[in-house]
Amino acid sequence: MKQAVTYELLHVDKNSGARRGIVHTPHGDIQTPVFMPVGTQATVKAMTPEELKSDVKAEIILGNTYHLFLRPGHKLIKEAGGLHKFMNWDRAILTDSGGFQVFSLGKLRKITEEGVEFRSYLDGSKNFMGPEESMEVQESLGSDIMMAFDECCPYPSDYEYTKKSMERTTRWAKRCKDYHKDEEKQSLFGIIQGGFYKDLREISANDLKGMDFPGYAIGGISVGEPKSEFLEMLRFTTPLMPENKPRYLMGVGSPDYLIEAALSGIDMCDCVLPTRIARHGTALTSRGKLVVRNAAFENDFGPLDDECDCYTCKNYTRAYIRHLVNTKEILGIRLLSIHNLRFLTKLMENIRIEIERDNLKNFRDEFYDKFGYTKDEYKI
Amino acid sequence: MKQAVTYELLHVDKNSGARRGIVHTPHGDIQTPVFMPVGTQATVKAMTPEELKSDVKAEIILGNTYHLFLRPGHKLIKEAGGLHKFMNWDRAILTDSGGFQVFSLGKLRKITEEGVEFRSYLDGSKNFMGPEESMEVQESLGSDIMMAFDECCPYPSDYEYTKKSMERTTRWAKRCKDYHKDEEKQSLFGIIQGGFYKDLREISANDLKGMDFPGYAIGGISVGEPKSEFLEMLRFTTPLMPENKPRYLMGVGSPDYLIEAALSGIDMCDCVLPTRIARHGTALTSRGKLVVRNAAFENDFGPLDDECDCYTCKNYTRAYIRHLVNTKEILGIRLLSIHNLRFLTKLMENIRIEIERDNLKNFRDEFYDKFGYTKDEYKI
Repeated sequence: MKQAVTYELLHVDKNSGARRGIVHTPHGDIQTPVFMPVGTQATVKAMTPEELKSDVKAEIILGNTYHLFLRPGHKLIKEAGGLHKFMNWDRAILTDSGGFQVFSLGKLRKITEEGVEFRSYLDGSKNFMGPEESMEVQESLGSDIMMAFDECCPYPSDYEYTKKSMERTTRWAKRCKDYHKDEEKQSLFGIIQGGFYKDLREISANDLKGMDFPGYAIGGISVGEPKSEFLEMLRFTTPLMPENKPRYLMGVGSPDYLIEAALSGIDMCDCVLPTRIARHGTALTSRGKLVVRNAAFENDFGPLDDECDCYTCKNYTRAYIRHLVNTKEILGIRLLSIHNLRFLTKLMENIRIEIERDNLKNFRDEFYDKFGYTKDEYKI
Repeated sequence: MKQAVTYELLHVDKNSGARRGIVHTPHGDIQTPVFMPVGTQATVKAMTPEELKSDVKAEIILGNTYHLFLRPGHKLIKEAGGLHKFMNWDRAILTDSGGFQVFSLGKLRKITEEGVEFRSYLDGSKNFMGPEESMEVQESLGSDIMMAFDECCPYPSDYEYTKKSMERTTRWAKRCKDYHKDEEKQSLFGIIQGGFYKDLREISANDLKGMDFPGYAIGGISVGEPKSEFLEMLRFTTPLMPENKPRYLMGVGSPDYLIEAALSGIDMCDCVLPTRIARHGTALTSRGKLVVRNAAFENDFGPLDDECDCYTCKNYTRAYIRHLVNTKEILGIRLLSIHNLRFLTKLMENIRIEIERDNLKNFRDEFYDKFGYTKDEYKI
């Protein structure tokens, strides 16, 4: 059977586990390692699809199953011809399983073997989502990459709970695979869980590999733990994933985490960080984060980042963007969103170049130094 | 002396007073009659300059002296190289005098012969603006067209107050003209006041004409009065203005008022209406206003307006825009702003064509009929 999504390995960095590759999808190729902007509610916040293509140069974006299930509803999106057509985006889309958001609801949800009962944060209505429902929604959305329904344990979680949860996630993964038949149109990825326990990660990875998913993700790290624990679990888990399939680290978007993910052999990452901090007036720059509203930039007529090639940096000054942020003008959010997203896709472009040069470790050192991270941070 | 801004009359509609012309400015020509989008705080809300050019096809926008005086301050904008450069807009800009906003402050302001003392709505600080201050600010902004500092009387105002106010506005106009010397770079327009009293309008127009401004505006109508009174005063006042200079009706932006303004011989109008109603989820269409959030559009996969050529109508459905409005996504405001602004600039394009065909009155009849206005509305 032809798989909708396949992975092509181009080069492995000789001095790290970093992989340069291509993920082939029904909606075009994705150069990896890649950062995927998040379009929670059928829109990457404040951006048009054209801007994502021409300014950000995004090849794939995320959609959130949970949010789209509640509003406008997957049936409406199916009626519209799928998520691509509904939101006017003709490149690749990955949808999450809805699990992460459902489990974030705390007291508003109840987990059973069947799935999760939860109350809508919008109107309090009772809803249910389990593996089959998640598949049904994601099939209606028509994403290129679907994710298996999983539980993402909070940090910290004890060994017993994490084990039970991981085992249930594995059973749910099997039910997802049983439900989703048409792998030629949409590929279903499995998610490795197991919290911060190496033996559980190993069991999870092995069990899921046994089900032969066309791609694998790491879930349940980058959930509030110290960076050293993140790195330890990342570096332990990535090598457990098959080499001939895409490897996706969920929910990672800060520059250092993206570099570390690539170094460990990860191909795909996503995060709301660039657009979220944009809405709060913060820019990512090659010299660290910049809080634009600071008085220091009042009459700073330079660009946000003098090394950036984005629309914002080519046309607008810090002083102007600061004014827009201070006056709560939408254009301020737009300009910062374009810049922050482009900063990360440009970082990934550089990472891909450095992998081809077997030089990603040196690149990390230089990047950390310039951005203002301490180098000790990646020693564990 | 060469004037920065001049008017070229191309054609007068044989069946009305409507004028087809060109306003020449240091930042390009403006085909008239024209609708001018408002960029209150150095940005037309939610729009980039590129979108204003390519999607809206705007040739001139407004800036608000009062808002820019408070934030970020005219001195900063001057330091940035003027408003054009600060906001990255290389076409024409008209700035208002600040008077309208200052007088809207109610109890927060005090009028004397000198000018107006007012408290900032931002921090309560005491400020003063009179004719000279308004000129200083507008010269710092570097707009192509500056407006004389005036008082816009509320509706209704009694005869005595309106008379005193109008006479003071005339004295202020003289002080503005005395202050502003460099008419080669920026042209200063006079504003005819006089409320809803024809004899006062006549006096105001005559006195200002005596000062030989390069352009004239009508202020103080479209301030909450019934449409019949608006039309009566519009049709009375416009013919009092010189034929060889631009005629600007301030604060008008609903489709019927724009058509009526053109019919009476007005060349320029401005209003926040298209972007304001966009932020509240309403679209202007050839068949009237459309409240996108209405349930009726839930699975309406047609465009906002099937006669519209804008980016929004070419790429997005009512169902999708309704979803964006319901979820408070910025893209919803963006798409509606583009559409509403384009609706009005396209209306003005049609008005210009119909003037050339001596057919604007018939066009009005057909437009009213389709949009849902009653034809009685323009009979006074």
